[in-house]
Amino acid sequence: MTTAKGYAAHNATEALSPYDFSRRVVGAKDIKIEILYCGVCHSDIHQVRNEWGGTNYPIVPGHEIVGRIIEVGAEVRNFKVNELAGVGCLVDSCRECDNCKKGLEQFCRNGFTGTYNGADKKSGGFTYGGYSNQIVVDQDFVLHISDKLPLEKVAPLLCAGITTYSPLRHWKVGKGHKVAVVGLGGLGHMAIKLAASFGAEVTMLSTSPSKQKDAAQLGAHHFALTTDPEQILALTGKFDFIIDTVSAAHDYNTYLQMLNTDGVMVCVGAPPTPSQIVAFNLIGGRKSLAGSLIGGIAETQEMLDYCSEHNITSDVEVIAISEINTAYERMLKGDVRYRFVIDMSTL
Amino acid sequence: MTTAKGYAAHNATEALSPYDFSRRVVGAKDIKIEILYCGVCHSDIHQVRNEWGGTNYPIVPGHEIVGRIIEVGAEVRNFKVNELAGVGCLVDSCRECDNCKKGLEQFCRNGFTGTYNGADKKSGGFTYGGYSNQIVVDQDFVLHISDKLPLEKVAPLLCAGITTYSPLRHWKVGKGHKVAVVGLGGLGHMAIKLAASFGAEVTMLSTSPSKQKDAAQLGAHHFALTTDPEQILALTGKFDFIIDTVSAAHDYNTYLQMLNTDGVMVCVGAPPTPSQIVAFNLIGGRKSLAGSLIGGIAETQEMLDYCSEHNITSDVEVIAISEINTAYERMLKGDVRYRFVIDMSTL
Repeated sequence: MTTAKGYAAHNATEALSPYDFSRRVVGAKDIKIEILYCGVCHSDIHQVRNEWGGTNYPIVPGHEIVGRIIEVGAEVRNFKVNELAGVGCLVDSCRECDNCKKGLEQFCRNGFTGTYNGADKKSGGFTYGGYSNQIVVDQDFVLHISDKLPLEKVAPLLCAGITTYSPLRHWKVGKGHKVAVVGLGGLGHMAIKLAASFGAEVTMLSTSPSKQKDAAQLGAHHFALTTDPEQILALTGKFDFIIDTVSAAHDYNTYLQMLNTDGVMVCVGAPPTPSQIVAFNLIGGRKSLAGSLIGGIAETQEMLDYCSEHNITSDVEVIAISEINTAYERMLKGDVRYRFVIDMSTL
Repeated sequence: MTTAKGYAAHNATEALSPYDFSRRVVGAKDIKIEILYCGVCHSDIHQVRNEWGGTNYPIVPGHEIVGRIIEVGAEVRNFKVNELAGVGCLVDSCRECDNCKKGLEQFCRNGFTGTYNGADKKSGGFTYGGYSNQIVVDQDFVLHISDKLPLEKVAPLLCAGITTYSPLRHWKVGKGHKVAVVGLGGLGHMAIKLAASFGAEVTMLSTSPSKQKDAAQLGAHHFALTTDPEQILALTGKFDFIIDTVSAAHDYNTYLQMLNTDGVMVCVGAPPTPSQIVAFNLIGGRKSLAGSLIGGIAETQEMLDYCSEHNITSDVEVIAISEINTAYERMLKGDVRYRFVIDMSTL
């Protein structure tokens, strides 16, 4: 047993230090993980800077967590000490609503508990994430991690991986489909790898010619520059499926026009302002504009197993925790190939 | 054989009178129909007034046509003189592209020929529609009309009927589904009748309390007033499917929030200005905003047969052709229950 120091501190008037990582006593169904790597997601920046509002300080961000189990509760069944384990964006949900029962914990009717800055039902306070050396999580929200792949490259699968895997699977993307990926960042580079591995013909759509070479190396079959009106026009009605990973404001109509009859464009990034949609771009061709949010726990495990089997990982730049502010600045400029991952031994 | 008067006139320098209805010589595959009733669609007004641009005058609107066959070409197989027949929004398409071959002539890759104001491949001019006493149409675009139902109530099925039937069928709406219909006009009243007949639980969403009684009579199980914030809030996450028939500008986000997980909102009306979409309204709950356009020829026949079998027709106000301008003015005020139909014997 570890001490209940963090838990106690959090419930006392004493301020919790962000470096005080033993979140709570390891309960009967809990697993304590020594964190080895944690990916750096764009949403970490938004929340650290309170750009979405609702940030509760002190905040410990991070929801792309891989590590090694160092303690398990008495009722933990499927995990053992010393095994590798992962934690993604969720650490709890009601488990009783129809969506939880269907494995859609990300759409829990009573609200899922985010891995950080989430209202923590157990402590009564808020959850603290993966920029830390330990985390305690209920066994139902812990993932098995294969030892076949480099761990630092696996960490981003817990958010960037599942966020792109889930819609590709839900809309049954595969052989014979023409797929476009909008935006080549953390999500976009996983979307290319996954869509290509499912057998789709993948086109990278980017505003930056410098991304062409990388897109090809990641597995994209084609590249189009969306600053060039001629290239855009040539893609009219081309794609069965578009996965839009861009969370900056951009014109959705440009991409809707590239959909084939019955085509679907799925947004996994949420621009800060509403997007203007011309209804005829949906009506002509019976097209859909959809959204998708991470994935459920069972599907996240399925994705991790798939990636292990097919040797799919994220392209990462490993950093020390001391480099995090520089990393944030570089991410804001799109200067990362394609995910920063913190080596937690540097903490 | 009729004379080729209209066809000749159209190809000569002599101006074609809109009252000169023998559009062309009845070719080997053509059917000539004496028009008995023609429904008045909102798009007639837009095109007559050139509000969408691209109107070619003289224009003869009308694409909800029912009548009796008075002549058939030598190669016409499935229709006989004296039978009832219908014509909807399309009178031709390329018939060779993948969409035409799939029965999606409304999404013909080479552009379908609209029943009026369409570029007519046969005459080299433009097509003329159903506010007329005769029309000549290729057999592949003529529908069989049952003699079981009042013809004037069948006419609007050719546009308002198929426009709502097609998306309900495509998204497999039926028993166990909660469906909302936005807007109670020509399309909306058919959407209620059809969705209810498919076994769905139907809620009418309207800004007008006066529509409540009618909605119930048409088959809606519930009614909600969308000017009341409390009623809107109570519907959060409620519907599996929303069919939005409103073509005036309105806030889509209000309705997207009413969708359940994996819910689909389908627009069959096209507002004149772009609609602002908050991406999180799609991402949270993996929802879709889609569009749908009329339906293919085979599906239109399926719909007519279904309506005949289930005694489903449009609620109409029959008018004389001399009343058309008053009818347009009343339609613009939403003052019609729920479709004007011209009795062509008044021409």
